[in-house]
Amino acid sequence: MAMFATPQSMHFSEPLALRSGASLRDYMLAYETYGTLNAGHTNAVLVCHALNASHHVAGVYAGQERSEGWWSNMIGPGKPVDTDRFFVIGVNNPGSCFGSTGPMHVNPDTGRVYGADFPVATVEDWVDAQARLLDRLGIGQLAAVMGGSLGGMQALSWTLQYPARVRHAVVVASAPNLNAENIAFNEVARRAIVTDPDFHGGHFYEHGAVPRRGLRIARMIGHITYLSDDVMNAKFGRQLREGLDLKYSTQDIEFQIESYLRHQGDKFSEYFDANTYLLITRALDYFDPARAFDGSLRRALAGTLAKFLLVSFTTDWRFSPARSREIVRALLENRRDVSYAEIDAPHGHDAFLLDDARYLAVVRSYFERIAAETAAQMEARP
Amino acid sequence: MAMFATPQSMHFSEPLALRSGASLRDYMLAYETYGTLNAGHTNAVLVCHALNASHHVAGVYAGQERSEGWWSNMIGPGKPVDTDRFFVIGVNNPGSCFGSTGPMHVNPDTGRVYGADFPVATVEDWVDAQARLLDRLGIGQLAAVMGGSLGGMQALSWTLQYPARVRHAVVVASAPNLNAENIAFNEVARRAIVTDPDFHGGHFYEHGAVPRRGLRIARMIGHITYLSDDVMNAKFGRQLREGLDLKYSTQDIEFQIESYLRHQGDKFSEYFDANTYLLITRALDYFDPARAFDGSLRRALAGTLAKFLLVSFTTDWRFSPARSREIVRALLENRRDVSYAEIDAPHGHDAFLLDDARYLAVVRSYFERIAAETAAQMEARP
Repeated sequence: MAMFATPQSMHFSEPLALRSGASLRDYMLAYETYGTLNAGHTNAVLVCHALNASHHVAGVYAGQERSEGWWSNMIGPGKPVDTDRFFVIGVNNPGSCFGSTGPMHVNPDTGRVYGADFPVATVEDWVDAQARLLDRLGIGQLAAVMGGSLGGMQALSWTLQYPARVRHAVVVASAPNLNAENIAFNEVARRAIVTDPDFHGGHFYEHGAVPRRGLRIARMIGHITYLSDDVMNAKFGRQLREGLDLKYSTQDIEFQIESYLRHQGDKFSEYFDANTYLLITRALDYFDPARAFDGSLRRALAGTLAKFLLVSFTTDWRFSPARSREIVRALLENRRDVSYAEIDAPHGHDAFLLDDARYLAVVRSYFERIAAETAAQMEARP
Repeated sequence: MAMFATPQSMHFSEPLALRSGASLRDYMLAYETYGTLNAGHTNAVLVCHALNASHHVAGVYAGQERSEGWWSNMIGPGKPVDTDRFFVIGVNNPGSCFGSTGPMHVNPDTGRVYGADFPVATVEDWVDAQARLLDRLGIGQLAAVMGGSLGGMQALSWTLQYPARVRHAVVVASAPNLNAENIAFNEVARRAIVTDPDFHGGHFYEHGAVPRRGLRIARMIGHITYLSDDVMNAKFGRQLREGLDLKYSTQDIEFQIESYLRHQGDKFSEYFDANTYLLITRALDYFDPARAFDGSLRRALAGTLAKFLLVSFTTDWRFSPARSREIVRALLENRRDVSYAEIDAPHGHDAFLLDDARYLAVVRSYFERIAAETAAQMEARP
């Protein structure tokens, strides 16, 4: 039977101080919860989202059959992260465009829509915002924080910013920072958006415009980097869109891969906010916990107390296994408890969202361990 | 002492029939030659250019010290392709924007600038145009045809279209066709250009406009794919452009890699023609000699008579060594004479234009072999 999800929101009037020096006040966070918080409040799992996702992590909305949460193969009743055992929280980060306060909302200081004036938030700022939400929900310590890609960076950052509040961190298809190529792809996407005449310096809402051209290009670039070479060749190869004859045209669609990318770009430009795209790619660029430690990830991770599961995928060239191994190595150098699985999957970075029996089994068994620990902890209580 | 280059051009009034069914009439080809054609006309080497290059392959223009040809580390007096021994020809392909007839020229059928109406030309069409130029220059058979990347595709196509006119083909950093990812990157670049409001459906010249935004994005994407991950990390890494402090801005330049890419994009948009970009990326997409043989490269290459040198570079992820090996394998299955060098170079696809002692030595020794064969052939003449 389907699990039903109910979007909720929480208002925060205390200003959230951001790493940039700016602050955010009078903001809302959209979130969802699944399962039941136990009496000791020890079974909470926070799920952090990546670029194009939201607080709608699992379940479906009543009456909307096709509204599955973005990680519903992973999270739900009887799923690897079992909501019959865990109280799972999904939260939309500030600056995003799925319900939490973001660039399309009104700036309480000016009475105008934020647009490009929405303050740049970092992964660390998001984690702070998430921690406040947990305070409100009465959750002192998380059984686990988990996320893939940019979500994995947030999970990692939790163990640094709030070491005592995290028992386990599950970091999937992630990296300790972006490399030059990652930043380069983000920058091309941002330039496509910013130079779209419909962007209007980020205040396009007031012009009744949407920089769709830029968003389309950004998404097309993104899609290429989410997929592996192999899976693109397997799915599309050099297949023509129509029949066998070439059209000899520079502007018409000729190959299936072109059709797929244009479709993805079009869809995305219908619902994603351009300023959010800029903000989230910048948060990706900025994340670099080793920066304050002269580039030493070992020293950066010295303060962590959590236990870790890291997962990477062999064909992920956006956040390659080598990047996950950097984190594993730095944790081991600090004698932390680390499990690591490198899944031989053909799907590239996208693999973290897909069904792969080995991947799901690794996460399931890790969460069984967490559940057992949580139960033992409860019994040991006076 | 510098070798001086002199651009020349040849007019062709006979229509060139193109694979698309269209034809090109009254066109010019810009070309340059270096060295001296020997008495037997047996020492000619044709050099084919890739996307962003021209007939100006080697030497410098008198009075312009910094005008070196794009392959002048490879070609010139005493260079691996020694112009003291070989008569080297560089030719700009029709549709390009460096002197040969292209989209910015007047269509003799309409009296209007071609713009988007310039006919789509394929690698095979370019080879036909090159063959006609050689006819005019009195060159029946080439000692060698050579090129890198898209230029390598032309060299390979020469051995299929005019097997008896090519003794050796030197195919560097190339591929038997584009894979889905290659086409995908081309398509994103094309969409950026075509959706730029200044593109005006490809007739921007009449509007006094240039789709610079699109060209910038196209070039930035291109640059990322020319470089390896490693070399980007080594050259730029996460280095900030200014000092140590983050600006926390989505639109300002923060990282050196952003500054580099924007600069490359700006430069390119000043001199490269948008319609040419579309045409040349389409020629890349279309090239696929195995297509007419149910995908069998072995059968496609059965008609070749030339000897081959193939070179690839380990960190080239645009045209990876695996793609060169496909060609090598298909040639060996046809019992052709093939030499193959896989150079362990960090520079990605760009490596084919750079100084790498092993790479230059491989080409040098291959051309020494060609020179020896050519000399023996001359002596054996009655």
